[in-house]
Formats: sequence, structure tokens, C-alpha cells
Amino acid sequence: MRKIKVAILGATGAVGQRFIQLLENHPWFEIHELIGSDRSAGRTYAEAARWVLDGSPPPSVHDKTVLPLDAEFDSPLVFSALPKEPAVEREPALAAAGHIVCTNASAHRMAADVPLLLPEINADHIGLIEVQRRKRGWNTGALIANSNCTVMPVVMSLAPLRVFGIERVHVVSMQAISGAGYPGVPSLDILDNVIPYIGGSEEEKIQEEAHKMLGSLEGDVVVDLPAAVGAACNRVPVVDGHLVSVSVGLRERVSMDEIITAWNDFRGSPDVVNLPSAPKQPLYYLHEHDRPQPRRDRMAGNGMSTSIGRLRPCPILDYKYSALSHNTIRGAAGCSILNAELLAAKGYFDAFEAPIAHEASISAGD
Amino acid sequence: MRKIKVAILGATGAVGQRFIQLLENHPWFEIHELIGSDRSAGRTYAEAARWVLDGSPPPSVHDKTVLPLDAEFDSPLVFSALPKEPAVEREPALAAAGHIVCTNASAHRMAADVPLLLPEINADHIGLIEVQRRKRGWNTGALIANSNCTVMPVVMSLAPLRVFGIERVHVVSMQAISGAGYPGVPSLDILDNVIPYIGGSEEEKIQEEAHKMLGSLEGDVVVDLPAAVGAACNRVPVVDGHLVSVSVGLRERVSMDEIITAWNDFRGSPDVVNLPSAPKQPLYYLHEHDRPQPRRDRMAGNGMSTSIGRLRPCPILDYKYSALSHNTIRGAAGCSILNAELLAAKGYFDAFEAPIAHEASISAGD
Amino acid sequence: MRKIKVAILGATGAVGQRFIQLLENHPWFEIHELIGSDRSAGRTYAEAARWVLDGSPPPSVHDKTVLPLDAEFDSPLVFSALPKEPAVEREPALAAAGHIVCTNASAHRMAADVPLLLPEINADHIGLIEVQRRKRGWNTGALIANSNCTVMPVVMSLAPLRVFGIERVHVVSMQAISGAGYPGVPSLDILDNVIPYIGGSEEEKIQEEAHKMLGSLEGDVVVDLPAAVGAACNRVPVVDGHLVSVSVGLRERVSMDEIITAWNDFRGSPDVVNLPSAPKQPLYYLHEHDRPQPRRDRMAGNGMSTSIGRLRPCPILDYKYSALSHNTIRGAAGCSILNAELLAAKGYFDAFEAPIAHEASISAGD
Amino acid sequence: MRKIKVAILGATGAVGQRFIQLLENHPWFEIHELIGSDRSAGRTYAEAARWVLDGSPPPSVHDKTVLPLDAEFDSPLVFSALPKEPAVEREPALAAAGHIVCTNASAHRMAADVPLLLPEINADHIGLIEVQRRKRGWNTGALIANSNCTVMPVVMSLAPLRVFGIERVHVVSMQAISGAGYPGVPSLDILDNVIPYIGGSEEEKIQEEAHKMLGSLEGDVVVDLPAAVGAACNRVPVVDGHLVSVSVGLRERVSMDEIITAWNDFRGSPDVVNLPSAPKQPLYYLHEHDRPQPRRDRMAGNGMSTSIGRLRPCPILDYKYSALSHNTIRGAAGCSILNAELLAAKGYFDAFEAPIAHEASISAGD
Repeated sequence: MRKIKVAILGATGAVGQRFIQLLENHPWFEIHELIGSDRSAGRTYAEAARWVLDGSPPPSVHDKTVLPLDAEFDSPLVFSALPKEPAVEREPALAAAGHIVCTNASAHRMAADVPLLLPEINADHIGLIEVQRRKRGWNTGALIANSNCTVMPVVMSLAPLRVFGIERVHVVSMQAISGAGYPGVPSLDILDNVIPYIGGSEEEKIQEEAHKMLGSLEGDVVVDLPAAVGAACNRVPVVDGHLVSVSVGLRERVSMDEIITAWNDFRGSPDVVNLPSAPKQPLYYLHEHDRPQPRRDRMAGNGMSTSIGRLRPCPILDYKYSALSHNTIRGAAGCSILNAELLAAKGYFDAFEAPIAHEASISAGD
Repeated sequence: MRKIKVAILGATGAVGQRFIQLLENHPWFEIHELIGSDRSAGRTYAEAARWVLDGSPPPSVHDKTVLPLDAEFDSPLVFSALPKEPAVEREPALAAAGHIVCTNASAHRMAADVPLLLPEINADHIGLIEVQRRKRGWNTGALIANSNCTVMPVVMSLAPLRVFGIERVHVVSMQAISGAGYPGVPSLDILDNVIPYIGGSEEEKIQEEAHKMLGSLEGDVVVDLPAAVGAACNRVPVVDGHLVSVSVGLRERVSMDEIITAWNDFRGSPDVVNLPSAPKQPLYYLHEHDRPQPRRDRMAGNGMSTSIGRLRPCPILDYKYSALSHNTIRGAAGCSILNAELLAAKGYFDAFEAPIAHEASISAGD
Repeated sequence: MRKIKVAILGATGAVGQRFIQLLENHPWFEIHELIGSDRSAGRTYAEAARWVLDGSPPPSVHDKTVLPLDAEFDSPLVFSALPKEPAVEREPALAAAGHIVCTNASAHRMAADVPLLLPEINADHIGLIEVQRRKRGWNTGALIANSNCTVMPVVMSLAPLRVFGIERVHVVSMQAISGAGYPGVPSLDILDNVIPYIGGSEEEKIQEEAHKMLGSLEGDVVVDLPAAVGAACNRVPVVDGHLVSVSVGLRERVSMDEIITAWNDFRGSPDVVNLPSAPKQPLYYLHEHDRPQPRRDRMAGNGMSTSIGRLRPCPILDYKYSALSHNTIRGAAGCSILNAELLAAKGYFDAFEAPIAHEASISAGD
Repeated sequence: MRKIKVAILGATGAVGQRFIQLLENHPWFEIHELIGSDRSAGRTYAEAARWVLDGSPPPSVHDKTVLPLDAEFDSPLVFSALPKEPAVEREPALAAAGHIVCTNASAHRMAADVPLLLPEINADHIGLIEVQRRKRGWNTGALIANSNCTVMPVVMSLAPLRVFGIERVHVVSMQAISGAGYPGVPSLDILDNVIPYIGGSEEEKIQEEAHKMLGSLEGDVVVDLPAAVGAACNRVPVVDGHLVSVSVGLRERVSMDEIITAWNDFRGSPDVVNLPSAPKQPLYYLHEHDRPQPRRDRMAGNGMSTSIGRLRPCPILDYKYSALSHNTIRGAAGCSILNAELLAAKGYFDAFEAPIAHEASISAGD
């Protein structure tokens, strides 16, 4: 199989770097274009990027020239790690030009016709692509979002509980510094400290994105999960891995064993199980009394599994537990890639045998 | 005024060290005897203690000989920083022998006739001393407990809200490593990590101690606050300062302004305000959007004030907010000292002009 | 005594905040004007400054209006916490206008006629003020620098060893994050990490500033200490306190006891001992086997004492030891204030009974 | 090829866990017996070990019964992660019984007939095995040590410089907490702190082990590298990865380019290059101005490569630089495994086709 060409928007930032790292040796996708800010454009990636992940950038991107944000390019698949502001206009413009845009930005997540896709739990929301194409007059293009990184362990752990009737959800997060990008959180603010606040309306995002992600596609519309969701967010001195303390109220009477079984048996739809980035097991319940822990559990399933522990009765709602997901893998770049894999498996890139619309006008950047 | 002589039980441990540090230059109390484990007994304090606080032990205790746990001694006032197990028998025995024991241990906190004293909010619980003396046949002696360190910011922040009818309280804690004593938490467990568990039934303690502390003394009995309280506890890489994320459901409809006013106006009973260790203001509401923070706010009021921030509506209960207290000052040694100051102000040490019962048999340790 | 009025340049930055904190309740000086960047000018201090120290800004500065960098003002004493670039021109201009400028900036430290003043070890370098006034035509004005924060524990610990003939000095630093100001070091760079590099030619500064500070004023010139000095600098995840591992080669044969005695007996010149910010003991030798430690020893002498430990033979040079100073107190604002106190004690502010030159043209900022 | 059976001594400790982790799926070796303390013996590994590495113990060891320290067993290859004291007698006893013991303990490192083996730099020291067998009357057995974890980045970076004549070496270390095992360093000692001391004569070990490892085997004896070596050791709040700041004096005049080339070209002997655990490149010189860093570079070459950076002239010796090795992989378990691989490649396990001496008497533990 010829690999699908990929462009990365915001390639020099922290999430952009995760895309590059996770796409190294990807079986279906290959990085073709790197797109950055005006400051980066025209320089090689090695010059333009201050690599903040472990090690060094992969040799394959070292000498690629970073393209400006308004460059035209020919990769059918676009991963966007743009900040919210530039994403507002650029992402739909690229979709209109025929690209399939898998975005990590928050700009379009709550648009009614944009799927907030998490393949294991709402693969059918992909149906919104037809809605958006119809409504916006797009042809081969599409815009697919993945969620805020903190909502990830919440919705992953709640998804198997939908059958029990989720009524109320109370979340307190302890979020890693990498969630704020680079340079992000000043060390003077977080060393020997906790900050009981995350900017960018984080608490509201958790509330509204959980409603949408756990909702059901009915006709052209995602109907929100009808549950009350509240969140209180904190930043802790942890490099990677967002931990949430969750209390949940359920409509049905259900035992702890039933809940643990629901988690451990959860696999997501069969379409998803065999995707290259899908973890063998999306959810693990850890029986140790003091898990999950960010440093020790964030890399479960190569950073794509969610770890859960400490299920116990809650005096306020019904049950409480702790859950953890890797915020820049499962909660950002890894989920975008899994989304794109689902699209590929569903044939959304078959149309791209032929060149996309504007290709003739592009001079390749590398 | 002649100072009241003080003995410290468990003087070499982390909380014992805080007692020593806070009693240095105390206007009413002076350290007379230091009591430690068998390992420490017979050595000077400087030899026996591995000082884990900042700086070095005060010169005044350097050369004091540490006495064994079963030593008899003549200080009327005893501060106990014993672990739970040795406290079970030793503390009542000392009270029976005539000492007034202010304990930080958990052993007797929930005994019906032991006041779980926090002067600003339940100074009248001191009335249980008469109950315990009557019931146990104690004479000058008494046993007064202070609470678990994590419940402290919870009850301090809830106390002024009692007038609005507290019905439900949901707490998620982010606790400092010093709460576990020394050596306490291994660094390999907590660096770049959060542990979603605190041993010693921490969550249950928060629940039951909050009920008792916020309860009302009726006759010989403290009637618990009739509210549902639930807690989920986490350890974070912070040296000192326990931060809690609290959601509260109130019987009355009340505005955020009313709550903030209740906090800022709260002073505790007039008996308490002028005690040497009482902070000018027990509670501060911080209007900055990202406070309180452990490192920046733990020393408010010399570590005796509780800082509150981020009051906002809660989609599950009525309101949520963050609160912070210094766990080894307000949450441990400092509160014990404030309790003893209240007793002194109320005349409980007046009886000690004359020597206490067993004094004749004691050869002073230093 | 009427207090001397003080202006703080760069008042909203991290070092400016330390000036404000340390000058609160100062017996000789009072803050009169706060001067900041264009972004801050015209706003109140509470609005303009993001306070990064513990607690909140003192009430006395809360409502002061921040003046722009080019404002004229009338305080005779100026503490400068400016970055290097704006300091280059502004500081001499203020001295030319008649102000006594005590600067923490690096811009003028190595100018031949600017004293690099550390009162305990080179109080006589103050004589350069006459040189600079003569050479530059200044009248009441003067420019006095204090050193880089990292050289501080080096020169403090070496000063008493000058009598033994210092020949070679090898320094490896482990520096706190606060040395980089705010926002300074991104947390993603330093959590669970060490950075073996400090920008701004830190290693060169240590070398050249040590030469000058330990040198001797001969006529109009400071003659450098004729010793080889080398430094390798590292950033560690510590909030405050720069620790250095020092090896030293001495001309004379000297025992460890003699060195420890030299340190503990060191007091600096009698002029200095009674200054308000002078610590009782500038140097402490700690006999514990694992000290000094940044968190536990940085506040020795209210942050103005240097702690030394672990003296032992060095297989390469003669002896090695560890030394620690608080980098933003002794190594920055506190030293500037001590310098100004020395000037005050020497009568340098006596001339200011009468208003300084440009005062007439100033409209007070608050 | 049938895999060589392996026993791990001290299997439940932190280094024992690394052995288990690194041997999972090893192409030549398979874990056969796990040996622990009396406390662990008789329990399954999952029950006995508090796993401190990431994730959970591999399923293959979950249900293995831990054997007591004095158990007889039949694996020809023994990896020892014992503490020093039990290693003193047990390791030679096992070698006498016919086992090949690759030990990480310090007990026998400096014995004249025990190779302190680091395959890339002194593979020929393996010749000491014949010396020890002759001297001690051992048959198939042998005792091979690997070095202290902190000396590793020192000797790895110095090895290629031997040709330039190493005369003097000055080392200041910044060591990770995992070097102290588990529970190891209390978090109250290291959070927001540096400890300028490592117990267990760490500085002396670095000095003497460097001499031996960089020495040359002449006849039956390793002749030490005739260079002065001094070390000052510090503990820093880093999970894994020991960073050293090194200054070196060389006999020959050599340029920085020549040194960097010597490092990058270094491969070790051809015997070593193709061993399963040998990194492609033992040394990497990083040209970025602020590397190597523990968190970002410790996993270079799967934790087996040493990263070097910041080569520059030293005012005291000739050159200085920073170097980093992963302390529990390259500096402990990984190096032991590489040593065993070298022995296997050299045929030292060929004798074990037949059962070893005491095998008949063993009842296998699992």
C-alpha cells in the first residue's frame, strides 16, 4: 500500500512534535509537509523547532523546510496542532480545499457538524462528515476534531457505564504541565506547588465536550448525553499524564464488580480494534490500592490506554474512582492519528488516488 | 507570668520538630521535657533527632536529654506527636496522672468524651473535658485532640457556612508529602507523580472528623453535623500545604457574595482572637483567579490562616471552591498549641501552682 | 531619623518584587517610587505586577502608580532590577542626574570605576565612587553594582581564605530556577531534569566577577585577585538557593580546622556588622555530613548568610567543599540593600537634605 | 539456540526489577529463578515485590515463587542485585558452586582478580576470569562485576581520550534518586532541594573504580590508569539519569574537534558491537548548547548510550564537558546483562550443556 501523505500544521510546537514522533515509522501515513508559524517558515525543521520531547527530532524531518501557514500543499491528510486563533479560519479553508483535517485545536470542536471523534466510543459520529460536506459544500475535504486532553480519561472511563444510565458526574483534575504546551507553565509557578486553575475555560470544555462525545448521533445531529457534568481543574508538577478523580451517579443499581467488568471488557467497535494505533485494551482496571499514577501508568498501551483504579462508593453520588490518560498521546496527537486511521479504514482517502484540487500550483517544500 | 512547662511526646519526629520550632520563644509555654522512642532515649536531642525542617534545631533543645516514653515527668502540659499505636495507652495514662494532653494523634479523636478542638469553630466543645473527668475519674488531667491535617481546610472553610445549612460536601484533596512524616513518602513514588491514595483511612477520617468538629455540643454529647461528606485523597509533590477542592450543597439559597463575606468576616469566638497563636484573620478569600496555591499561601497568618479561592457554581452541588491550610502548622502542631492556649486562657492550668501528683518521684531529665 | 526615599527600577519583575518585600518595614529606607516597563506604566502596582513571591504584595505598594522607565523622580536612592539592556543607558543617566544607583543589573559590573560591592569582603571598594565622580563629572550621584547571584557563595566562602593565598578555584554550580526571573525557566525544561547550561555568559561572569570582588583597591584601580577561576553552571529543580561545589588550590599549607575557623570567625569590617540587613554571622560552617542544602539552608540569616559544608581534601586541587547562598536575597536584592546601607552609614546620603537637581520638574507619581 | 537460564538475586529490589524488565524477551537469556530476602521467599513475585518501575511486572514472573537467598538452583547465569553485605559471601559461594555471577553489588568490585567489566572499553579484562579460577579453584564458575552507576558516564566519556594521555579528572555529579534504590531517598529530603552528599563512600568508589576500569590488563593484573581522579557527589530531584560535570587534564595538546571525533567514532571492540544489548553508538556528542539533560537523554540507545555535550576549555584543567548515563540501565542492570552477553559470545556458557554440579539436589522453584 502506498502511504498516505501527511501535513502537520503547527509542526514546531509541543503537540506538533508529538505528531512527528508518533508518525515515525507509521504503517499507513508518512510525513510530507511541515507547516509552522511565520517565525519558523523557510527554516529547516531542525533549525526552527526547539524539540521538547525526549531525545532529538527523527532524522526524517531534520532537513525538511518548514512551510508558512498559508502555503498550499498536496498532502490529503492534515494533522493540526494549531493554537485556537489561527485554527478558526485555516482549518475549514483547508477542508474546503479538499484536505481531510484532523484537528487537535479547540476552535471547531463544538460545531454541530464537526465530529468530536474518539473511535472506541463514538465511531459512528463520523457520520457528521456527510452532514458537513452537504452543508458546507465540501467535496473530498472534512474536518474532524479530537477532544480536550482532560476530558479524555473522563469519557473513556464513562463510556462503558452509559448502559447503567449516567446521571451526574463530578470531576476534579490533576493535570500535567505538558498540557499547557511550551514554554507553557513557568517553573516558578509549579515547582513545590499546585495551581487550582487552568486557563482557556478548561472546566467548561470538559463539561460540554463530555456531553457531546458521549452523546448519540440521531439523524444529522449529535444529541448530548443528558447528564450533569461538573469539573474543577488543577495543575500539578507532573510532566505527562492527566489524572482525574471522578464521582458518578448512575440511574441503575449496579455493583462494583459489574463496573470493573464493564471497564475491562470494553473494546470499542470492531472497526477500531485493529487500527495501527489502537491499544489492545482501551481501559485497564488496576487492583493495586494506589493506582493509577501518572508517571507509572501514562505509557500503558503506548500511551493510548486509560488506566482506572480505586473504585469505591461515594457518599455524595454513587461511586468514585481515579482515571488517567496520557495527555499528549491519547489526549492529543495519538487520538488524532487514531481518528485518521479510522477514516482511512472507512475509505475516506480512496478518493485521493487522483491529485487534490490545487496541487498543480504547489512547489513542494522539500 | 511564669511560663507553663511543656513536655513533647514523640519529640524527634516530624510533627515533634514542628512543636519545638513553634514553641521557640512562646510567650506562655516553655519546653521542659522531650520524650522519644527507645531508640532516642538517653541521647541528647541533637544526637537523637534527624532535623527535617529548615535550618537546625533551636539551641535551647540541643543538649536536652531525650526521655523514654514511659518516663514520669512534671510538665503539666503535654503535646503529643506520637504515632497512633503508642498513643492509645500512653495518652490517657498521662491524663490520668494529672497532665493536660493536647494530642495530634488519631487514637482518641473520635472518642465521645474527647473534644476534637478547633478554637475558632468549636471552642465550646471544651466542655467535654468535664465529661471525661467525670466519666474517667480524672482530676487535673484532660485529653484534647486536634484533627487530621486534611480535614482542616475543609472544616475551616465550612464553619462560616453552617448558618446556610450545609447538606452535602464533596472533597478532593491534594496533600503535601510532609503529611506522611519522615521518612514518609519515598521520592521514587512522588517525583513527577501523583498518588491517588493516602494510607491510614484518610478518607474516612475526613468524613467522620468533619461531622464531629462541625457538630454542636448538646449536654454531654457532640451531635454530628447532619451532612453527607465524601472525600477522595491524593498525594502531590508539594512540601507543605494541603489543598482541597470542595463542592458544597446548602439548604439555603445564598449568593457568592454572601459566602465570601461570611468567610472574610469570620473571626471565631472572642476568647480565641487574642490567643498568641491565633491568626489575625482565620480565613482569607483570595480574588486572584488561580489561588490559593500551596507554596505561595501556606504561610498566611504564620501558617495558621486558611486561604480560600475560586468560589463558583457547581453543576452537581451548589458551589465549589479551593481551600488551603498548612498541614503541619494549622493542621497539626500549631493547632495543638492554639488548643492549649485556649485551655490556659480558660484557667485549666491554674490548678498546677501546686506540683502534680507524681512529681516527687521524678528526676528531671535535663 | 527621616527615612531615605527609594525608587525601584524594574519594580514588577522577580527581583523588583524582592526589593519591595525586603524594604517593607526597613528602618532607614522607604519605597517612594516604583518604575516599570511601558506595559506597566500608569497602572497601579497591584494591577501591573504578577506577584511571584509568597503571599501578596505589601499593602503599602498596592495602589502606587507605576512610573515609566524615563520618568523623572526625586528619590535619592535607586535600586535597579532592570534587565541588562535598558540598564546600559538608564543607570548612568540617573547617576548623572544625582541619584545613587545600587544596581543588580550586569551592565556596568565590570566597568573599572564601578565598585562591585559586597560589604563584608570589599567595603573599601566604595572608594571607586570618588573615581567615577571625578571621571564622569558626577556630583551627588553614584553607580554601585552587586554581583551575579551565583558568584556570591563562591566569593563569600573564598574571602576568608585570601590570607592563605588562593591560586586556583574550580566551581560547579547547581542553580535555582528563580535565578532566571519570571516567567524564566519553562517547567517542561526543568521538572525531573537538570539543564547543564545557564544563558547570559554565566560561567564567564563568575570568573571575572570573582576576580574583581576579591581584588584589592590600589589607588584608583581594583587589582584582580591573581587566581585561575573556572566555572561550570547547571540549573536544577530548586525554587531558591544556589549551591556550588568548589575546589580550591591554596599557596599555603593549611589544615581543615584552620579553614573552618577562618570561615566561622569571619565577620567582615566593623562598619558592616551593625548595618540593618547584615546577618549576625556572614558564614556558617555546618558539620552535618549532608549540608548545606538549598531548601533547608537558604534562609540562614534571613537569607543573607552563606552556609558551607563538606570540607575535605581534593585529589586535584587542595580542598573541596559545598557552599550555598540565597540567590534572590543575598545574591540580588538583599545585597543591593546592604550596599546602600553601607553608603548611608558612610554619609553618602547626607547631601540629600536639599532637594536633588531635577526635583522641581517632577510631578510625583503617587 | 536454547536460551541460557538465568537466576536473579535480589529480584524484588529496584535493580532486580530492572533486570526483570530488561530480560523480558531477551534473545539469549531467560529468567528461571527469582531469589529474594527472607521476607519475600515463598511468596509469588507479584505478592513479594512492590514494583517501582513504570507499569506492572511482566506476566512471565507474576506467579514465580521467590526462592530464599540460600536456595540452591540450577541456572548457570546469575545476575546479582544484592546489597553489599549479603553479596560478600553469597556471590563467591555461587561462583564456587559453578555459576557465572554477574554482579551489580560493590562487594567484590575492587578484588584484584574480579574484572570490573565494561565491554566497550575493557573487554580484555575478562582475562581475569582465568586468574580467579586458577587462584580460587573455581571450575565453570566466575564472578564478574560492573561498576558504580555514577562512574559510568565518567569512564565511558574518558575511554576514547586515553590515547591523549589522561592525567587529571575532576568530577561533580548530579545523581538521580533511583540510584539509592527503594524506598531510598525520602521525598522530604529531595523535593525543592539538592543533597550535596551520597552515602556509601560514593566519591571514593568513583575514584578507585575509574582507575581500575580504565586500567590495562598486564599479565594477571589490572594496572590502574595513572591519573588523579577526584569526585564530589550530589543528589538532585531527578528520577533516572546521572549527570556529571567533568574537567580533564590531558598530556597531549588536542583540539576540541579531535575530542568530539574521538567520542563519536568510538565503538568499542568488534566483539561487543553485535551483542544484543549493545547500543549502536556507545557515545553521542550533542551539539545543542544545553545538553545532555537527564530526562531528555537518559533513554538514548535504550538507556545504554552515554550522551556528552558542552565541551569547552577549562581554566583549571584543559577541557570540561557534561556527560550522562542512565543509572539503572547502563549504570546497573543493563551493563550486567551486556557483560553476560560478552561472556556468552566468548563461549563461557558452552560448558553448561551438561548440568552444573549441584543440580541433582535442586527442586525447581516453579
